[in-house]
Amino acid sequence: MAKFSERSLIETILAPLSRNCPGAFGLGDDAALISPRSGYELVITKDALVAGVHFFPDDKPELVAAKALRVNLSDLYAKGAEPTCYLLSLFLPAIMSEDWLRAFADGLEAEQEKYSICLLGGDTVRTPGPFSLSVTMTGEMPEGKMVHRSGARPGDHIFVSGPIGDAALGLRVIRGELKVTEKKDADYLKRNYLLPDPDPELITSVRDFASAAMDISDGLAGDLTLLCAASRVTAQIEVDAIPLSSAVRHVVENRPERITAILTGGDDYKILCTIAPHHADAFIASCGGKMFRIGKIEAGQSSVKFIGRDGQNLSLNALSYRHF
Amino acid sequence: MAKFSERSLIETILAPLSRNCPGAFGLGDDAALISPRSGYELVITKDALVAGVHFFPDDKPELVAAKALRVNLSDLYAKGAEPTCYLLSLFLPAIMSEDWLRAFADGLEAEQEKYSICLLGGDTVRTPGPFSLSVTMTGEMPEGKMVHRSGARPGDHIFVSGPIGDAALGLRVIRGELKVTEKKDADYLKRNYLLPDPDPELITSVRDFASAAMDISDGLAGDLTLLCAASRVTAQIEVDAIPLSSAVRHVVENRPERITAILTGGDDYKILCTIAPHHADAFIASCGGKMFRIGKIEAGQSSVKFIGRDGQNLSLNALSYRHF
Repeated sequence: MAKFSERSLIETILAPLSRNCPGAFGLGDDAALISPRSGYELVITKDALVAGVHFFPDDKPELVAAKALRVNLSDLYAKGAEPTCYLLSLFLPAIMSEDWLRAFADGLEAEQEKYSICLLGGDTVRTPGPFSLSVTMTGEMPEGKMVHRSGARPGDHIFVSGPIGDAALGLRVIRGELKVTEKKDADYLKRNYLLPDPDPELITSVRDFASAAMDISDGLAGDLTLLCAASRVTAQIEVDAIPLSSAVRHVVENRPERITAILTGGDDYKILCTIAPHHADAFIASCGGKMFRIGKIEAGQSSVKFIGRDGQNLSLNALSYRHF
Repeated sequence: MAKFSERSLIETILAPLSRNCPGAFGLGDDAALISPRSGYELVITKDALVAGVHFFPDDKPELVAAKALRVNLSDLYAKGAEPTCYLLSLFLPAIMSEDWLRAFADGLEAEQEKYSICLLGGDTVRTPGPFSLSVTMTGEMPEGKMVHRSGARPGDHIFVSGPIGDAALGLRVIRGELKVTEKKDADYLKRNYLLPDPDPELITSVRDFASAAMDISDGLAGDLTLLCAASRVTAQIEVDAIPLSSAVRHVVENRPERITAILTGGDDYKILCTIAPHHADAFIASCGGKMFRIGKIEAGQSSVKFIGRDGQNLSLNALSYRHF
């Protein structure tokens, strides 16, 4: 990095990513400006990633860029917000090459086009530790329309936006802790760990119909527990109704105890939401079949019950992936 | 940290810091809400710090908290913005104790009261590297009033908001690279490195009168070069007019070559601004003597001249502190 200064990183590699954000001032000022449209509020979220913790040090730079943005997009989508811009802090060890950083910026650019977002600002610092990054993402929301965790009511239906457990098993495959014989299945699971796939088409459906919502990042069981705690309700989940990919079905076939890893594993980055009964049909229609009903909300204090095929409660050992 | 989960850190230590921000939802949601007052824009900045790079690993936690917030406050003040909230990403090594984190949060709280800001959101991640943190700070600004780097015009006066070079020499004293015999001087210099002191009383003066402004974080010479480049002008600085503390005066006495370290050292966190001649008197009056005139802007392409007592140009070897 000796010949490659912070200034040239910002001016030649990062500044072009800000060209569609007038308030970024080409990354040439000390701060950036945001003016939400009239009638809109600004929604903001912040998620950090560390090499060796949230991604593998030898992951492709484009993949690291995409994951860093998508975990933040996932938070905003689950609130019903339309993402607009992001700020980026890069923590750079001395070994980062200019080539790596250029490929990383190419990855950011591809994501910006895919998700209609723009780099607004940030900074770069050196670190004796691993490559790390912190993304702050902003979005817009019609005033008063943010969907909270706390709005679930008894009788509401519970939905998730796609198969659960792919990423948790993908991580175990990558680590060599789980053998999956079918290469197609193994590749599918690994890909789902490496790169979440938040769906912008669900933003307005969530905003228009959900009584409560959050993204599932630390496991369905743990995150649903948080939603129930915030809403002071109980959730009853039919385990057989939880959508599972065929790859996950193959892994749990004849090994029913493995369902715990599916329900408590992290990194799903799917939307979990609750819908009042009188909105359920309209919600399902608006989502084009992308949301799956997995249970319902009941009165009672902040608990989650998983009901198996035999009608018995499943007991889960660990409710959530722990970060430390 | 084994017994101390991310959740309890957020719920018991950090959430109380968000109590004055309704849009933080007690740190219990996936995103936060900001609604600038009518007629105001939102200004946003992001600065990261790493133990061993931007502060010393054995610095007191309250001091680390204060520095992390103040380097961001300094950016907003220099734009004429009133800070409102901040988001915080904490990168935590396994060795962080609960006591350390509680003291760190106490430091945040003291700063929040001093500067009328509030914790809005963020996240915590573990890292195998050093303790690091990323702050994203938001502020409010009457629409169209942000002060840019690019507005300096020939004839403008150049001002700084206080003594230059204290922090740069303080860092050398701490590292043992500079001997300062007077203990009072050494303590003063070290304190100025460890804890910047941005002054909120200058916000409205800068906003009302400055044609261009930025905070001095990477050395007066380097940062003034950036301001001149953005404004496409030349700056002429009278070195004798640059305010120096008595501690710095003692260090440069009979060692005039040491002035280079003063002008190119980092971490001043003072405001550098330019003022049109017809505003100069009103600006000085509004600042209560806190701003010092050090030179003027001339036509010409983006250069900076430092003129010594003898009327000769000083030649500086390194224009700015390099981060890497």
